[in-house]
Amino acid sequence: MQVTLVHIKVKPEYVDDFIEASLNNSRASVEESGNLRFDVLQSADDPTRFVLYEAYETAEDAVAHKGTDHYLLWRDTVADMMAEPRQGLRYAGLNL
Amino acid sequence: MQVTLVHIKVKPEYVDDFIEASLNNSRASVEESGNLRFDVLQSADDPTRFVLYEAYETAEDAVAHKGTDHYLLWRDTVADMMAEPRQGLRYAGLNL
Repeated sequence: MQVTLVHIKVKPEYVDDFIEASLNNSRASVEESGNLRFDVLQSADDPTRFVLYEAYETAEDAVAHKGTDHYLLWRDTVADMMAEPRQGLRYAGLNL
Repeated sequence: MQVTLVHIKVKPEYVDDFIEASLNNSRASVEESGNLRFDVLQSADDPTRFVLYEAYETAEDAVAHKGTDHYLLWRDTVADMMAEPRQGLRYAGLNL
């Protein structure tokens, strides 16, 4: 089971648009084969900071996500909203 | 809905014991009222780094977790296993 925590900082003027695009992405992603989690988290301390919590049964399922129409739409939609490059950190989910 | 990401670095000699204690804690925690997630994540880059992904329906549910026997047992069991103080970061789960 493979987890990625994607850490994102958004330009303040794009917070609402980023949330809308990311919720659209999450709604489609949870329907993918092998998806276990696709949670959109907004920092309580800094509303411009987000974490996408993505969990898939296999590494192949996670790779396939990057080829979906909804991922590619999200990627292009939010590209100019980011205040800095996003960072994806990989984990094993020990109880997923 | 309230999410906490607890970032933990464990002394290398305690990795297996930490995993055992944390999986015991997670098994009981997911049975709590209001619990939505209690995932135990181990870094793919550094096996001494962990994240506990804890999500509860309300702030009160999250506070109640800190009073459970299984949380208190976990806290005392892992206290000497940590290489540095753990850090809990709060988020709102926008699609939970």
